[in-house]
Amino acid sequence: MDTLLKKIDAMKNPTVVGLDPTLEMIPEPLQAEMFEKYGKTPDAVGSMFIKFNKEIIDSVADIVPAVKPQIAMYEKYGVEGIRAYLETIEYAREKGMTVIGDIKRGDISSTAAAYAAHIEGTEIAGEEFDLWKEDWITINPYLGIDGIQPFIDACNKKDKGVFVLVKTSNPSSSQIQDIVVKDKTIYEMVAELVKEWGTQSMGTMGYSRIGAVVGATHKEQGAHLRKIMPHTFFLVPGYGAQGGTGADLKGFFDKDGRGCIVNSSRGITAAYKKNNKYGERAGEAARAAALAMKADLQY
Amino acid sequence: MDTLLKKIDAMKNPTVVGLDPTLEMIPEPLQAEMFEKYGKTPDAVGSMFIKFNKEIIDSVADIVPAVKPQIAMYEKYGVEGIRAYLETIEYAREKGMTVIGDIKRGDISSTAAAYAAHIEGTEIAGEEFDLWKEDWITINPYLGIDGIQPFIDACNKKDKGVFVLVKTSNPSSSQIQDIVVKDKTIYEMVAELVKEWGTQSMGTMGYSRIGAVVGATHKEQGAHLRKIMPHTFFLVPGYGAQGGTGADLKGFFDKDGRGCIVNSSRGITAAYKKNNKYGERAGEAARAAALAMKADLQY
Repeated sequence: MDTLLKKIDAMKNPTVVGLDPTLEMIPEPLQAEMFEKYGKTPDAVGSMFIKFNKEIIDSVADIVPAVKPQIAMYEKYGVEGIRAYLETIEYAREKGMTVIGDIKRGDISSTAAAYAAHIEGTEIAGEEFDLWKEDWITINPYLGIDGIQPFIDACNKKDKGVFVLVKTSNPSSSQIQDIVVKDKTIYEMVAELVKEWGTQSMGTMGYSRIGAVVGATHKEQGAHLRKIMPHTFFLVPGYGAQGGTGADLKGFFDKDGRGCIVNSSRGITAAYKKNNKYGERAGEAARAAALAMKADLQY
Repeated sequence: MDTLLKKIDAMKNPTVVGLDPTLEMIPEPLQAEMFEKYGKTPDAVGSMFIKFNKEIIDSVADIVPAVKPQIAMYEKYGVEGIRAYLETIEYAREKGMTVIGDIKRGDISSTAAAYAAHIEGTEIAGEEFDLWKEDWITINPYLGIDGIQPFIDACNKKDKGVFVLVKTSNPSSSQIQDIVVKDKTIYEMVAELVKEWGTQSMGTMGYSRIGAVVGATHKEQGAHLRKIMPHTFFLVPGYGAQGGTGADLKGFFDKDGRGCIVNSSRGITAAYKKNNKYGERAGEAARAAALAMKADLQY
């Protein structure tokens, strides 16, 4: 997992580009091309997603260390969607990018062990397969440690990482996560668990392989969570389109400006829709948006 | 969703068979056949899972109303695993069984809307596709209502259902779900939310399309949750292999013996391994185990 931290340092850019394609996000000419070729089918959409993602990846791979494909957007299109997810991951890795699979899985122990194949790989009668190829994944803590342990073990075995949902970026995250127990909220209690779980899997740069998802939309809470979890690497969604700004995030980082990777999805991938000068050139617009975001995150 | 309730009544059997295959669960001759045909590959495992599941389905379809494939077990084998998941679902539906997809998805609103395709289907340029074909799915409440609403809308639109994780069957479920807030636990608070969410989507038989997962391993809590959620249909995992018995579950049902469907996975699908008389005849053993479970659940 230190690979990601080193890339962020080398590029001076704690940004991850969220690859969460929708049909509406795809430029018209690309839609037309694939519908022509494959008809109105999941195949057509999968092919659009792959080509679109490759354009984004090509345009940012030298300035952004990681991509975060959100598997839901691909699952929506069935097996062909999953194929697009996997081909996107392979391409991003070929271009040297770290891949954070935003899969938010979580289940009881034996089932969690099966999901851990996402980062651990799959053994079949003595043969090893890396069928998903993510470097990091996101996971859900609602089932407690026995659903988390298989992921911790996989992280240790493969030197990969997970981000546990602590405080998500959405408005109704408060409904359960902000419930107050004596003098603490649930998300603070989860944060303490994540900190404790993380001690089982430390990297060499002061951060654990067991990271946390902390939404950019919660400025004070983020800074507070940094104090609770000084050795926990944060995946920060909710920047840009969901309302968070660079200034809001200063407290999420440690005193050296490390410890976070901030996600932007539509703000980068659909930037071409916001400025006519780019026409349908999504990659060019994405690069400009990624550079602006990088500048916004320098402290 | 009333289809499932009616099937349970007609068969006098509130059982769902969990189709959670592992390589170890597959009879040796079937393993040998598929490894011979496809080599040591995900293809071979996917083909084993399909054939094994079909044998189980054939042997119980006339006495058990539903199956619950756990997607993690299939995801472990990548795209070929997902294909086996889908082919299993199609076959179970052909045989008249209801399918509960145990996918435990959960995310922020726009992403949850993409996951809702599992029950709502997918629209591509005006064409409708049902790419996943589940009748019910399980979902995770940690993100609050904006991550749940898209599923409620899909349930209303397609008359399908979801089970929200309330109190899971695993030992460490207590770690977060049993945290006490004033005079209530988190899972009780989630139960109250599920009850409230459920009023948006009532079926015609007194139960809501927004159900709850309540583990069989928690006898008192289950009976208590029935009181909190009188109109919530329960999916009950943890029977058999995880320790729950029929007697433990009486309080989970309503006074007419309705309101639950109880899952058994290995206890049925791997029953052939427990009794030499069945040899490798997994289907025959599964039927006997399903009949024993049915008898255990008559009150």
